[in-house]
This record gives sequence, structure tokens and C-alpha cells, in this order.
Amino acid sequence: MNSRQSNVRQRVVAAAAEMLARHGLNATSIREMIKRAKAPLGSAYHHFPQGKEQVVLEAVAFAGAQVSHSLERHLQAGPVAGLRSFLSMWREVLIRSDFRMGCPVMAVAVEEPVGEAAKRPLEAAAKVFADWEGKLAAALQVHGRDARSAAELATLIVASVEGAIVLCRARRSISPFDKVARQLEGLVHAQASH
Amino acid sequence: MNSRQSNVRQRVVAAAAEMLARHGLNATSIREMIKRAKAPLGSAYHHFPQGKEQVVLEAVAFAGAQVSHSLERHLQAGPVAGLRSFLSMWREVLIRSDFRMGCPVMAVAVEEPVGEAAKRPLEAAAKVFADWEGKLAAALQVHGRDARSAAELATLIVASVEGAIVLCRARRSISPFDKVARQLEGLVHAQASH
Repeated sequence: MNSRQSNVRQRVVAAAAEMLARHGLNATSIREMIKRAKAPLGSAYHHFPQGKEQVVLEAVAFAGAQVSHSLERHLQAGPVAGLRSFLSMWREVLIRSDFRMGCPVMAVAVEEPVGEAAKRPLEAAAKVFADWEGKLAAALQVHGRDARSAAELATLIVASVEGAIVLCRARRSISPFDKVARQLEGLVHAQASH
Repeated sequence: MNSRQSNVRQRVVAAAAEMLARHGLNATSIREMIKRAKAPLGSAYHHFPQGKEQVVLEAVAFAGAQVSHSLERHLQAGPVAGLRSFLSMWREVLIRSDFRMGCPVMAVAVEEPVGEAAKRPLEAAAKVFADWEGKLAAALQVHGRDARSAAELATLIVASVEGAIVLCRARRSISPFDKVARQLEGLVHAQASH
């Protein structure tokens, strides 16, 4: 694949991730993804022969990896720094989009198809969440928690941030997010000093 | 309205809430809601002259009130009992549906329409979340927390349960929910003894 082709491919995947985060899985058509990426319509079937499911899978993996890399980098300075970067990333998405954009990984998990259930997008979403939880749990454990409470707190962090995104979008306000963030910082701080 | 009519109306609202919780906002058509409620198609426009938006609004309010009444009842025995009832209600929804059903209130908040944004369903969702948070916060405050930390913890509870629903649907497993539940019980217990 030459660099122009890989550029088109990447633009479609990024556009799909943004559409999922804004409009959800069912409102996101492959035609609209291509249009937003300003890519030629024919290129979709060249790059993504398996159609929408393939683009969605790659969009979830792409969005998951972006968050994961940033999380990994900041966790090197400890769990509090990692948590803060995770929080500020999502806070920024909400504020910048005027609460119209959320998490593309969530989108895939909460809209069961009316017909046959598509397993692969769900598996991709599960993999992303497990990756974030795993990275947080490992850092918490290195800084003194036992394996079980590190895993529980890591899952609480990912779950409550995903849920705070939902509450903020409903309320068109950052207030629920900031409340959750303060509670999580308190919990991670408390444990970091254990 | 006679009782048979009000029965049809209620069946459509309940069917809509279940469809939202399973398939999300965009996949939920008014025609399909009527069909699942085994109601005559013409009755939709009689009962819901404003169409899908009206049914969605009522479905969100209906689901919100069901949770709210149960929460209110159990909170009378204290915040730990209230939390447990809130948790077991959602745990039951996940298990019974084999992780195919989530929260209808969330569905409304995470699928921004592609065209003009519909404000009223969002407002209905915000009202439901605020009601649950308010009831939890009031009980936490009565049992010894100051207003600010009661409000923060109440929002953490609602956000993390909503988020845990997302994680469980992705993973097709109750494990994330149970981790979050244990963390939340610890937090509410710790404060109940303050």
C-alpha cells in the first residue's frame, strides 16, 4: 500500500471513530464515514472489503490504542499521573465537542443489532476496556495495592469515567465528570500512600 | 381514557424502554415498538401524536421512575441498603438478558442525532440521572457525610454503575459489574460509619 492509500485508509478509520463517538453505531453508515473522511467512495470497498463491520472494528482499535498509549506514557510517573491524563483526555473530548461526543468504544457495546448479533465489534470493545483496566491495575499494584483491589479500582476508574461521559452528555455540563474525577483522585491518592 | 386504552399505552411505553435498553435510540422505530407491544399500529398516533420523540420521552421517564421508586424504598433502611438495591436491580437486567440489555436512559444520551439535535430526550435523561443522584446523596448526607462529598459519591455511584453496564455488555460477563459493586460497597460502608 502506498502512503497516499494508507493516508485515505487512516482518515476513514478516524472519521468512523468520531462518528461512533457522536452518533453511535446504528447512525454511522459506511457511506457517511467515507464522505466525512473526504475519501473517494470506491476506496471504501478497496480498503475495507468486509464493509462497515471492518471499519468499526478498526475504529474501536484505533481509538483504544490512542488512549492506551497516552495512559501508558503517563503511568510511568505513577498511578495519580496516569489517572489525571486519562481524565483530562476525556474531559477535553466532552468540552471541545460541547458534550456532543463521547466514547466510540462504548458506542459499539450498547447497541445490540436488531437482527443477528455481531460478535466481533463487541470483542474489540471488550479488548480495549480490558487493556485500559490492565494498565491502570498494573500501575496501582506496583504502587502498593494487592492484585485484587488494584484490579477492582482500575475497573471502577474505567467504568465511572465511561458513565460520567454519559451523565455529562445528558446534562450538557461537565459537572458530573468533575465530581467523579475528584472522587477517583481521592481513591488513587489514598492508595498511593498505602 | 378507558382502562384498555391506558393498558395499550403503557405496553407501548414499556416496550420502547426495553428496545432502547437493548438496541439504542436509532434502532428503535415507533413501528417496531408498537409491534413488540402487540398494539394496533393506528393506536400509536392516537396515543403518541408527537411520534417517536414522545414515546422515547415517556419510556425514559417510566424506566427512571421504576428505579427511583425502588431506590427510595430501600434507602429508607440506609445508604448501604439503597446502594445494594440499585446494584442488584442492574445486575439482574444484565444477567437475565444475557448482557444484551442495558440502560434505556443511557441510550438517549449517547446517540446524538445526525441532523438537528433533539433536546427534549436529553433533558428527560438528565432529569432521571439527577433524580437518582439526588436520592443517593440525600441518604448519604443523612448518614453523616457533608453535602459536597455526599453529592460526589452519589454521582460516582450512578456513573460507575452506568459504565459497568457498558463494560459487562462488551465482555458478556458480570465480572466488571461485581468489581465495581465491591468498590462502591466499601466506599458507602466506610462513610456510613463516619
